[in-house]
Amino acid sequence: MEAAQACHRNVMISGKVYRTVSDRCWDTGKRMADLTAMGLALQVVSPMPELLSYWMAAADAQQLLRYINEQIAVMAAESGGAIAGLGAVPLQDIDLAIRELEYVVKTLGFAGVEVGSNINGEPIGAPRFDPFFEACESLGASVFVHAIRPAGMDRLVGPAPLQQVLGFPGDIGLAAASVITTNLLVRRPKLRIAFSHGGGSLAMLLPRLQQGWAVFPVLKEALTAAPLEQARKLFYDTLVFDTPTLRHLVSVFGSSQLLIGTDYPFNFHDSTPVQRIESAGFDQATAMQLIRHNAERFLGLAQKASAA
Amino acid sequence: MEAAQACHRNVMISGKVYRTVSDRCWDTGKRMADLTAMGLALQVVSPMPELLSYWMAAADAQQLLRYINEQIAVMAAESGGAIAGLGAVPLQDIDLAIRELEYVVKTLGFAGVEVGSNINGEPIGAPRFDPFFEACESLGASVFVHAIRPAGMDRLVGPAPLQQVLGFPGDIGLAAASVITTNLLVRRPKLRIAFSHGGGSLAMLLPRLQQGWAVFPVLKEALTAAPLEQARKLFYDTLVFDTPTLRHLVSVFGSSQLLIGTDYPFNFHDSTPVQRIESAGFDQATAMQLIRHNAERFLGLAQKASAA
Repeated sequence: MEAAQACHRNVMISGKVYRTVSDRCWDTGKRMADLTAMGLALQVVSPMPELLSYWMAAADAQQLLRYINEQIAVMAAESGGAIAGLGAVPLQDIDLAIRELEYVVKTLGFAGVEVGSNINGEPIGAPRFDPFFEACESLGASVFVHAIRPAGMDRLVGPAPLQQVLGFPGDIGLAAASVITTNLLVRRPKLRIAFSHGGGSLAMLLPRLQQGWAVFPVLKEALTAAPLEQARKLFYDTLVFDTPTLRHLVSVFGSSQLLIGTDYPFNFHDSTPVQRIESAGFDQATAMQLIRHNAERFLGLAQKASAA
Repeated sequence: MEAAQACHRNVMISGKVYRTVSDRCWDTGKRMADLTAMGLALQVVSPMPELLSYWMAAADAQQLLRYINEQIAVMAAESGGAIAGLGAVPLQDIDLAIRELEYVVKTLGFAGVEVGSNINGEPIGAPRFDPFFEACESLGASVFVHAIRPAGMDRLVGPAPLQQVLGFPGDIGLAAASVITTNLLVRRPKLRIAFSHGGGSLAMLLPRLQQGWAVFPVLKEALTAAPLEQARKLFYDTLVFDTPTLRHLVSVFGSSQLLIGTDYPFNFHDSTPVQRIESAGFDQATAMQLIRHNAERFLGLAQKASAA
């Protein structure tokens, strides 16, 4: 990190400014003040995706990620329960990743981890990540999949933010599809896994996948449960910036599968996530699922909450 | 083409079977019988995308495409008005492409052309294709953009049909986005351009593009009209295999911008496109826009139809 303008620092990667970020990334007090303004009682902090460092030597990445995980733990401790953590694990080495997963869950008390939509180009549903998901399921760790270094960059025509704006939703959509085409939730029914940006393009891919599954014998054979049925076992965040789209996602994925996502504190974040749901015309029970209950289920807090 | 089972032939590319296709691809009589069953009065035939041949030397491609264009013209002539044509042009060479465009429009009487979502990896909205679109606008030629050789192939985990099922909608979504981020319809307001597969992922990309445009000054500067406003000037086909998704597309893009697409006669086609619209719960005027009037506008038949 290098100094930038007031309240900001430059994230430096290989000597170049990768992004200028606000001190809200690490200042627990400022975050908590914003939480109140956003109408949130609990915020789950996960690393900025570029820090996931899948492209580094695994041992080097593990060192960096351990430091990040410890910092998130500090923020959680400072917050008096308003901030929870999702850690980072070096998925370029499955064994190391499982060890770091155990550390963040057992030692730091995190709900689980954030992972990328792809690991150096391989989508998160690829079979070689299965031992990692087996460990997540067995530890009861939540997995939040965030878009990272997306496919299709050569299809974008325009300024750099199009990577986040157009590339991310495509990559997270294909990541969610890869989890469906490999039957992850059929094989690991207790796994809790959520996808960023409302699942990105998935809502548009899914009817076509459902039809393809009905038409192509090789797809029927490969997918051991209907794509739509599998999709309704995944979680998705609400970060789509549009009420009709949010309503469409609820009808596609089910009111039990969406939870608030914000991309806070970056400039392209949703600052009124609760109001957006409250003003979307859902009945009160559905709104409360999206605002609170689904997140509690995803994070494994449901029992705790019902006991409170 | 090589012989395959009855009523089918193998499309051979470099000595290998690319795909086994039904004789409905070229048998005008069989096509017309199916048209009646599908409830269609007019079918617009365009080449199987892989035949667009952008990866060949341009002069070789032009020869092949000329042959294909002439074959489509034969089918149109045999059909007594039930079949119209969209031709193919060698877009790897813009000048040759414009010459073939002029031939198919002026000599063969086609409504316009089919083009790929990308030309050897470059999305159709890339600035270098602008002279071609200028010619299309000036000739009043319709442009139908179909997914081809999609981005994100390394993100798919499963059998080969996933290319069509999951890759195609992502690529057509990015193609439509590229036309928006380069302001094509702002610069060429009379151009009529349609995107296959309901615009693919575009409906999920668009709210994010709209928000990004409001947030990132470089995007605000690059896009001279709001993304949503631009998207509502493009046409999209109805080929999404799902009623709630079709209804969502009408609300996103507007009831004036969708027209029937089928992918007929391939195995992954929609055999009941009219019934699907009629049973979707639209009011009669909207249903007639989707079934007929939008296609007439896209094809430049609107005046002819109102005079009939």
